[in-house]
Amino acid sequence: MQHDFSIPTRGQGLYEFTRDVQAWVAASGVRDGLLTLFVRHTSCSLLIQENADPEVQGDLHAFFARLVPPSSDPSMTYLRHTYEGPDDMPAHIKAAMMPVSLSVPVRSGAPVLGTWQGIYLFEHRDAPHQRKVAAHLS
Amino acid sequence: MQHDFSIPTRGQGLYEFTRDVQAWVAASGVRDGLLTLFVRHTSCSLLIQENADPEVQGDLHAFFARLVPPSSDPSMTYLRHTYEGPDDMPAHIKAAMMPVSLSVPVRSGAPVLGTWQGIYLFEHRDAPHQRKVAAHLS
Amino acid sequence: MQHDFSIPTRGQGLYEFTRDVQAWVAASGVRDGLLTLFVRHTSCSLLIQENADPEVQGDLHAFFARLVPPSSDPSMTYLRHTYEGPDDMPAHIKAAMMPVSLSVPVRSGAPVLGTWQGIYLFEHRDAPHQRKVAAHLS
Repeated sequence: MQHDFSIPTRGQGLYEFTRDVQAWVAASGVRDGLLTLFVRHTSCSLLIQENADPEVQGDLHAFFARLVPPSSDPSMTYLRHTYEGPDDMPAHIKAAMMPVSLSVPVRSGAPVLGTWQGIYLFEHRDAPHQRKVAAHLS
Repeated sequence: MQHDFSIPTRGQGLYEFTRDVQAWVAASGVRDGLLTLFVRHTSCSLLIQENADPEVQGDLHAFFARLVPPSSDPSMTYLRHTYEGPDDMPAHIKAAMMPVSLSVPVRSGAPVLGTWQGIYLFEHRDAPHQRKVAAHLS
Repeated sequence: MQHDFSIPTRGQGLYEFTRDVQAWVAASGVRDGLLTLFVRHTSCSLLIQENADPEVQGDLHAFFARLVPPSSDPSMTYLRHTYEGPDDMPAHIKAAMMPVSLSVPVRSGAPVLGTWQGIYLFEHRDAPHQRKVAAHLS
Protein backbone atom coordinates (compact mmCIF):
# COMPACT_ATOMS: atom_id res chain seq x y z
CA MET A 1 0.00 0.00 0.00
CA GLN A 2 1.34 3.39 -0.92
CA HIS A 3 0.57 7.04 -0.29
CA ASP A 4 2.01 10.51 -0.82
CA PHE A 5 2.17 12.99 1.99
CA SER A 6 2.39 16.61 0.92
CA ILE A 7 3.97 18.92 3.50
CA PRO A 8 3.94 22.69 3.10
CA THR A 9 7.01 24.45 4.55
CA ARG A 10 7.65 28.12 5.26
CA GLY A 11 11.43 28.31 5.48
CA GLN A 12 14.08 26.38 7.41
CA GLY A 13 12.97 24.33 10.39
CA LEU A 14 11.19 21.17 11.50
CA TYR A 15 7.59 20.37 10.52
CA GLU A 16 5.91 17.52 12.37
CA PHE A 17 3.53 15.20 10.51
CA THR A 18 3.34 12.28 12.95
CA ARG A 19 -0.46 12.38 13.21
CA ASP A 20 -0.92 12.28 9.43
CA VAL A 21 1.26 9.17 9.28
CA GLN A 22 -0.51 7.50 12.20
CA ALA A 23 -3.93 8.26 10.71
CA TRP A 24 -2.94 6.78 7.33
CA VAL A 25 -1.51 3.62 8.93
CA ALA A 26 -4.62 3.21 11.11
CA ALA A 27 -6.94 3.64 8.10
CA SER A 28 -4.94 1.16 5.99
CA GLY A 29 -6.16 -1.87 7.90
CA VAL A 30 -2.58 -3.19 8.21
CA ARG A 31 -2.11 -4.45 11.77
CA ASP A 32 1.49 -5.68 11.71
CA GLY A 33 3.99 -4.69 9.09
CA LEU A 34 6.63 -2.22 8.05
CA LEU A 35 6.20 1.46 7.26
CA THR A 36 8.75 3.20 5.03
CA LEU A 37 8.90 6.93 4.35
CA PHE A 38 10.99 8.42 1.53
CA VAL A 39 11.44 12.13 0.82
CA ARG A 40 11.57 12.93 -2.91
CA HIS A 41 13.89 15.94 -2.64
CA THR A 42 17.60 16.66 -2.12
CA SER A 43 17.33 19.81 0.01
CA CYS A 44 15.26 18.63 2.97
CA SER A 45 15.37 15.61 5.30
CA LEU A 46 13.20 13.23 7.28
CA LEU A 47 13.86 13.13 11.00
CA ILE A 48 12.56 11.28 14.01
CA GLN A 49 13.09 13.46 17.06
CA GLU A 50 11.73 14.45 20.43
CA ASN A 51 8.35 16.16 20.20
CA ALA A 52 7.94 17.08 23.87
CA ASP A 53 9.93 20.33 24.13
CA PRO A 54 9.82 22.60 21.02
CA GLU A 55 13.24 24.00 22.04
CA VAL A 56 14.78 20.72 20.85
CA GLN A 57 13.67 21.54 17.31
CA GLY A 58 15.07 25.07 17.54
CA ASP A 59 18.38 23.76 18.87
CA LEU A 60 18.64 21.15 16.09
CA HIS A 61 18.13 23.86 13.49
CA ALA A 62 20.66 26.15 15.23
CA PHE A 63 23.33 23.43 15.38
CA PHE A 64 23.10 22.49 11.71
CA ALA A 65 22.95 26.16 10.65
CA ARG A 66 26.33 26.62 12.39
CA LEU A 67 27.83 23.38 11.14
CA VAL A 68 26.88 24.17 7.54
CA PRO A 69 26.71 27.97 7.14
CA PRO A 70 25.31 29.68 4.01
CA SER A 71 27.64 29.67 1.01
CA SER A 72 27.94 33.46 1.47
CA ASP A 73 29.80 32.84 4.76
CA PRO A 74 33.58 33.54 4.61
CA SER A 75 34.27 29.95 5.74
CA MET A 76 32.35 28.48 2.80
CA THR A 77 33.95 30.23 -0.17
CA TYR A 78 35.25 26.90 -1.49
CA LEU A 79 31.71 25.93 -2.54
CA ARG A 80 31.04 26.19 -6.27
CA HIS A 81 27.33 25.33 -6.59
CA THR A 82 26.11 28.77 -5.46
CA TYR A 83 23.87 30.12 -8.23
CA GLU A 84 20.66 28.80 -6.65
CA GLY A 85 21.21 30.96 -3.57
CA PRO A 86 23.37 30.89 -0.42
CA ASP A 87 21.00 28.40 1.28
CA ASP A 88 21.04 25.86 -1.58
CA MET A 89 24.35 24.01 -1.32
CA PRO A 90 24.18 23.92 2.51
CA ALA A 91 20.73 22.35 2.04
CA HIS A 92 22.22 19.57 -0.10
CA ILE A 93 24.95 18.99 2.51
CA LYS A 94 22.44 18.75 5.36
CA ALA A 95 20.31 16.41 3.20
CA ALA A 96 23.38 14.14 2.93
CA MET A 97 23.83 14.09 6.73
CA MET A 98 20.26 13.30 7.71
CA PRO A 99 17.82 10.59 6.56
CA VAL A 100 16.17 10.52 3.14
CA SER A 101 14.31 7.33 4.14
CA LEU A 102 13.00 5.95 7.44
CA SER A 103 11.59 2.51 8.22
CA VAL A 104 9.39 1.88 11.26
CA PRO A 105 7.81 -1.43 12.27
CA VAL A 106 4.02 -1.31 12.66
CA ARG A 107 2.21 -3.19 15.45
CA SER A 108 -1.51 -3.31 16.22
CA GLY A 109 -2.10 -0.74 13.51
CA ALA A 110 0.43 1.87 14.67
CA PRO A 111 4.11 2.68 14.04
CA VAL A 112 6.12 1.60 17.13
CA LEU A 113 7.37 5.11 17.91
CA GLY A 114 8.86 5.62 21.34
CA THR A 115 7.05 7.84 23.84
CA TRP A 116 8.76 11.05 22.73
CA GLN A 117 9.40 10.25 19.07
CA GLY A 118 7.76 12.43 16.43
CA ILE A 119 8.20 12.29 12.64
CA TYR A 120 9.43 15.51 11.04
CA LEU A 121 10.18 17.03 7.67
CA PHE A 122 13.34 19.12 8.19
CA GLU A 123 13.24 21.93 5.62
CA HIS A 124 16.72 23.25 4.70
CA ARG A 125 15.66 25.95 2.20
CA ASP A 126 14.60 29.52 3.00
CA ALA A 127 11.71 29.76 0.52
CA PRO A 128 8.34 28.04 1.07
CA HIS A 129 8.06 24.61 -0.53
CA GLN A 130 5.51 21.86 -0.96
CA ARG A 131 7.44 18.70 -0.02
CA LYS A 132 6.46 15.20 -1.11
CA VAL A 133 7.04 12.17 1.10
CA ALA A 134 6.27 8.78 -0.45
CA ALA A 135 5.03 6.13 1.99
CA HIS A 136 5.00 2.35 1.64
CA LEU A 137 3.28 -0.06 4.02
CA SER A 138 3.38 -3.84 3.78
CA MET B 1 7.81 -11.32 12.21
CA GLN B 2 8.76 -8.87 14.94
CA HIS B 3 10.94 -8.73 18.01
CA ASP B 4 12.26 -6.29 20.58
CA PHE B 5 15.92 -6.20 21.47
CA SER B 6 16.74 -4.68 24.84
CA ILE B 7 20.25 -3.29 25.14
CA PRO B 8 21.67 -2.14 28.46
CA THR B 9 24.12 0.78 28.20
CA ARG B 10 26.56 2.21 30.73
CA GLY B 11 27.28 5.68 29.39
CA GLN B 12 28.37 7.02 26.01
CA GLY B 13 29.89 4.61 23.51
CA LEU B 14 29.16 1.77 21.11
CA TYR B 15 27.50 -1.48 22.20
CA GLU B 16 27.56 -4.34 19.70
CA PHE B 17 24.56 -6.69 19.41
CA THR B 18 25.31 -8.36 16.04
CA ARG B 19 25.13 -11.87 17.47
CA ASP B 20 21.73 -11.30 19.06
CA VAL B 21 20.39 -10.13 15.71
CA GLN B 22 21.95 -13.05 13.81
CA ALA B 23 20.58 -15.55 16.33
CA TRP B 24 17.06 -14.14 16.07
CA VAL B 25 17.14 -14.14 12.26
CA ALA B 26 18.48 -17.72 12.20
CA ALA B 27 15.78 -18.90 14.64
CA SER B 28 13.00 -17.18 12.65
CA GLY B 29 13.08 -19.69 9.82
CA VAL B 30 13.18 -16.86 7.25
CA ARG B 31 15.75 -17.76 4.59
CA ASP B 32 15.54 -14.78 2.24
CA GLY B 33 14.02 -11.48 3.17
CA LEU B 34 14.58 -8.06 4.66
CA LEU B 35 15.58 -7.21 8.22
CA THR B 36 14.75 -3.77 9.60
CA LEU B 37 15.91 -2.38 12.95
CA PHE B 38 14.41 0.73 14.52
CA VAL B 39 15.58 2.39 17.73
CA ARG B 40 12.72 3.76 19.84
CA HIS B 41 14.65 6.68 21.37
CA THR B 42 15.87 10.14 20.37
CA SER B 43 19.17 10.21 22.24
CA CYS B 44 20.98 7.16 20.86
CA SER B 45 21.61 5.74 17.36
CA LEU B 46 21.96 2.55 15.40
CA LEU B 47 25.24 2.10 13.59
CA ILE B 48 26.85 -0.46 11.33
CA GLN B 49 30.60 -0.20 11.73
CA GLU B 50 33.86 -2.09 11.73
CA ASN B 51 34.07 -4.64 14.52
CA ALA B 52 37.66 -5.77 13.98
CA ASP B 53 39.66 -3.09 15.83
CA PRO B 54 38.00 -1.69 19.01
CA GLU B 55 39.95 1.56 18.48
CA VAL B 56 37.55 2.38 15.64
CA GLN B 57 34.70 2.55 18.16
CA GLY B 58 36.74 4.77 20.50
CA ASP B 59 37.66 7.09 17.62
CA LEU B 60 34.04 7.35 16.46
CA HIS B 61 32.99 8.36 19.94
CA ALA B 62 35.89 10.85 20.21
CA PHE B 63 35.05 12.49 16.88
CA PHE B 64 31.37 13.03 17.64
CA ALA B 65 32.16 14.22 21.19
CA ARG B 66 34.29 16.97 19.61
CA LEU B 67 31.84 17.78 16.82
CA VAL B 68 28.94 18.11 19.30
CA PRO B 69 30.37 19.15 22.70
CA PRO B 70 28.27 19.21 25.90
CA SER B 71 25.92 22.17 26.22
CA SER B 72 28.14 23.37 29.09
CA ASP B 73 30.93 24.01 26.56
CA PRO B 74 31.57 27.73 25.78
CA SER B 75 30.96 27.03 22.07
CA MET B 76 27.47 25.66 22.74
CA THR B 77 25.89 28.44 24.78
CA TYR B 78 23.32 29.06 22.03
CA LEU B 79 21.53 25.82 22.97
CA ARG B 80 18.30 26.32 24.94
CA HIS B 81 17.19 22.75 25.75
CA THR B 82 19.65 22.28 28.62
CA TYR B 83 17.60 21.38 31.71
CA GLU B 84 17.98 17.61 31.19
CA GLY B 85 21.76 17.88 31.55
CA PRO B 86 24.74 18.98 29.41
CA ASP B 87 24.78 15.65 27.54
CA ASP B 88 21.09 15.74 26.54
CA MET B 89 20.81 18.20 23.65
CA PRO B 90 24.11 16.96 22.12
CA ALA B 91 22.57 13.47 22.29
CA HIS B 92 19.56 14.64 20.25
CA ILE B 93 21.88 16.27 17.70
CA LYS B 94 23.96 13.12 17.30
CA ALA B 95 20.73 11.10 17.02
CA ALA B 96 19.79 13.35 14.07
CA MET B 97 23.13 12.69 12.33
CA MET B 98 23.21 8.92 12.65
CA PRO B 99 20.64 6.24 11.75
CA VAL B 100 17.41 5.65 13.68
CA SER B 101 16.56 2.77 11.31
CA LEU B 102 18.64 0.26 9.35
CA SER B 103 17.54 -2.23 6.68
CA VAL B 104 19.64 -5.26 5.78
CA PRO B 105 18.77 -7.94 3.19
CA VAL B 106 18.73 -11.49 4.57
CA ARG B 107 20.06 -14.46 2.56
CA SER B 108 20.25 -18.11 3.55
CA GLY B 109 19.01 -17.18 7.00
CA ALA B 110 21.56 -14.44 7.77
CA PRO B 111 21.83 -10.66 7.30
CA VAL B 112 24.26 -9.98 4.41
CA LEU B 113 26.73 -8.05 6.56
CA GLY B 114 30.16 -7.48 5.06
CA THR B 115 33.18 -9.20 6.60
CA TRP B 116 33.92 -6.42 9.09
CA GLN B 117 30.43 -5.06 9.65
CA GLY B 118 28.95 -5.21 13.13
CA ILE B 119 25.62 -3.79 14.37
CA TYR B 120 25.88 -1.32 17.24
CA LEU B 121 23.75 0.73 19.57
CA PHE B 122 25.54 4.07 19.91
CA GLU B 123 24.62 5.50 23.32
CA HIS B 124 24.85 9.31 23.48
CA ARG B 125 23.80 9.80 27.13
CA ASP B 126 26.07 9.60 30.20
CA ALA B 127 23.67 7.70 32.47
CA PRO B 128 22.95 3.98 32.08
CA HIS B 129 19.89 3.19 29.97
CA GLN B 130 17.91 0.18 28.79
CA ARG B 131 17.48 0.80 25.04
CA LYS B 132 14.77 -0.79 22.94
CA VAL B 133 15.34 -1.71 19.32
CA ALA B 134 12.28 -2.96 17.39
CA ALA B 135 13.03 -5.52 14.67
CA HIS B 136 10.94 -6.50 11.66
CA LEU B 137 11.67 -9.44 9.34
CA SER B 138 9.71 -10.34 6.24
CA MET C 1 14.07 -10.72 -5.06
CA GLN C 2 17.73 -9.90 -4.45
CA HIS C 3 20.74 -8.70 -6.40
CA ASP C 4 24.30 -7.49 -5.87
CA PHE C 5 25.53 -4.35 -7.54
CA SER C 6 29.29 -4.12 -7.90
CA ILE C 7 30.62 -0.58 -8.20
CA PRO C 8 34.24 0.13 -9.11
CA THR C 9 35.67 3.28 -7.49
CA ARG C 10 38.85 5.23 -8.21
CA GLY C 11 39.39 7.25 -5.06
CA GLN C 12 37.20 9.56 -2.99
CA GLY C 13 34.06 10.96 -4.57
CA LEU C 14 30.53 10.14 -5.70
CA TYR C 15 29.74 7.43 -8.25
CA GLU C 16 26.23 7.37 -9.66
CA PHE C 17 24.52 4.03 -10.37
CA THR C 18 20.88 5.16 -10.70
CA ARG C 19 20.43 3.61 -14.15
CA ASP C 20 21.71 0.21 -13.01
CA VAL C 21 19.17 0.22 -10.20
CA GLN C 22 16.32 1.37 -12.46
CA ALA C 23 17.19 -1.29 -15.05
CA TRP C 24 17.20 -4.06 -12.44
CA VAL C 25 13.88 -2.94 -10.94
CA ALA C 26 12.31 -2.70 -14.43
CA ALA C 27 13.56 -6.19 -15.37
CA SER C 28 12.33 -7.70 -12.09
CA GLY C 29 8.67 -7.56 -13.08
CA VAL C 30 7.77 -5.96 -9.72
CA ARG C 31 5.32 -3.12 -10.38
CA ASP C 32 4.64 -1.83 -6.88
CA GLY C 33 6.82 -2.56 -3.91
CA LEU C 34 9.80 -1.47 -1.86
CA LEU C 35 13.43 -1.30 -2.95
CA THR C 36 16.17 -1.48 -0.31
CA LEU C 37 19.88 -0.93 -0.93
CA PHE C 38 22.55 -1.88 1.63
CA VAL C 39 26.28 -1.21 1.28
CA ARG C 40 28.43 -4.04 2.66
CA HIS C 41 31.38 -1.86 3.75
CA THR C 42 32.27 0.52 6.58
CA SER C 43 34.33 3.06 4.63
CA CYS C 44 31.89 4.23 1.96
CA SER C 45 28.26 5.37 1.95
CA LEU C 46 25.06 5.33 -0.07
CA LEU C 47 23.65 8.72 -0.96
CA ILE C 48 20.66 10.10 -2.80
CA GLN C 49 21.57 13.51 -4.15
CA GLU C 50 21.06 15.99 -6.95
CA ASN C 51 22.31 14.68 -10.29
CA ALA C 52 21.73 17.80 -12.37
CA ASP C 53 24.86 19.88 -11.62
CA PRO C 54 28.11 17.88 -11.10
CA GLU C 55 29.41 20.73 -8.91
CA VAL C 56 27.03 19.53 -6.18
CA GLN C 57 28.98 16.28 -5.98
CA GLY C 58 32.30 18.12 -5.81
CA ASP C 59 31.00 20.42 -3.08
CA LEU C 60 29.67 17.50 -1.04
CA HIS C 61 33.06 15.85 -1.18
CA ALA C 62 34.81 19.13 -0.29
CA PHE C 63 32.58 19.75 2.73
CA PHE C 64 33.06 16.31 4.25
CA ALA C 65 36.81 16.39 3.53
CA ARG C 66 36.99 19.57 5.65
CA LEU C 67 34.65 18.32 8.37
CA VAL C 68 36.62 15.08 8.76
CA PRO C 69 40.25 15.72 7.72
CA PRO C 70 42.83 12.93 7.28
CA SER C 71 44.23 11.54 10.52
CA SER C 72 47.57 13.12 9.55
CA ASP C 73 45.99 16.56 10.02
CA PRO C 74 47.12 18.42 13.20
CA SER C 75 43.48 18.69 14.34
CA MET C 76 43.02 14.91 14.23
CA THR C 77 45.93 13.67 16.34
CA TYR C 78 43.52 12.24 18.93
CA LEU C 79 42.60 9.42 16.52
CA ARG C 80 44.16 6.05 17.36
CA HIS C 81 43.06 3.81 14.47
CA THR C 82 45.64 5.14 12.01
CA TYR C 83 47.67 2.14 10.80
CA GLU C 84 45.49 1.58 7.71
CA GLY C 85 46.39 5.03 6.38
CA PRO C 86 45.38 8.66 7.02
CA ASP C 87 42.19 8.27 4.96
CA ASP C 88 40.93 5.19 6.83
CA MET C 89 39.51 6.43 10.14
CA PRO C 90 37.98 9.53 8.47
CA ALA C 91 36.30 7.07 6.07
CA HIS C 92 34.72 5.20 9.01
CA ILE C 93 33.53 8.49 10.51
CA LYS C 94 31.95 9.63 7.23
CA ALA C 95 30.37 6.17 6.89
CA ALA C 96 28.74 6.75 10.30
CA MET C 97 27.31 10.12 9.20
CA MET C 98 25.81 9.04 5.88
CA PRO C 99 23.45 6.17 4.97
CA VAL C 100 24.47 2.51 4.92
CA SER C 101 20.95 1.56 3.78
CA LEU C 102 18.30 3.30 1.68
CA SER C 103 14.67 2.33 1.09
CA VAL C 104 12.69 3.65 -1.87
CA PRO C 105 9.06 2.81 -2.74
CA VAL C 106 8.58 1.39 -6.25
CA ARG C 107 5.59 2.32 -8.43
CA SER C 108 4.76 1.19 -11.96
CA GLY C 109 8.09 -0.63 -12.08
CA ALA C 110 10.33 2.28 -11.06
CA PRO C 111 11.74 3.72 -7.82
CA VAL C 112 9.82 6.95 -7.00
CA LEU C 113 12.89 9.16 -7.19
CA GLY C 114 12.26 12.89 -7.39
CA THR C 115 13.16 14.75 -10.58
CA TRP C 116 16.72 15.54 -9.53
CA GLN C 117 17.44 12.55 -7.30
CA GLY C 118 20.25 10.19 -8.27
CA ILE C 119 21.60 7.19 -6.33
CA TYR C 120 25.30 7.33 -5.50
CA LEU C 121 28.05 5.31 -3.91
CA PHE C 122 30.14 7.81 -1.95
CA GLU C 123 33.69 6.42 -1.77
CA HIS C 124 35.66 7.66 1.26
CA ARG C 125 38.95 5.83 0.60
CA ASP C 126 41.80 7.01 -1.65
CA ALA C 127 42.62 3.64 -3.24
CA PRO C 128 40.45 2.03 -5.92
CA HIS C 129 37.86 -0.41 -4.57
CA GLN C 130 35.19 -2.75 -5.86
CA ARG C 131 32.15 -1.94 -3.69
CA LYS C 132 29.24 -4.30 -3.16
CA VAL C 133 25.69 -3.04 -2.69
CA ALA C 134 23.07 -5.66 -1.81
CA ALA C 135 19.57 -4.95 -3.15
CA HIS C 136 16.23 -6.31 -2.00
CA LEU C 137 12.91 -5.82 -3.79
CA SER C 138 9.55 -7.04 -2.57
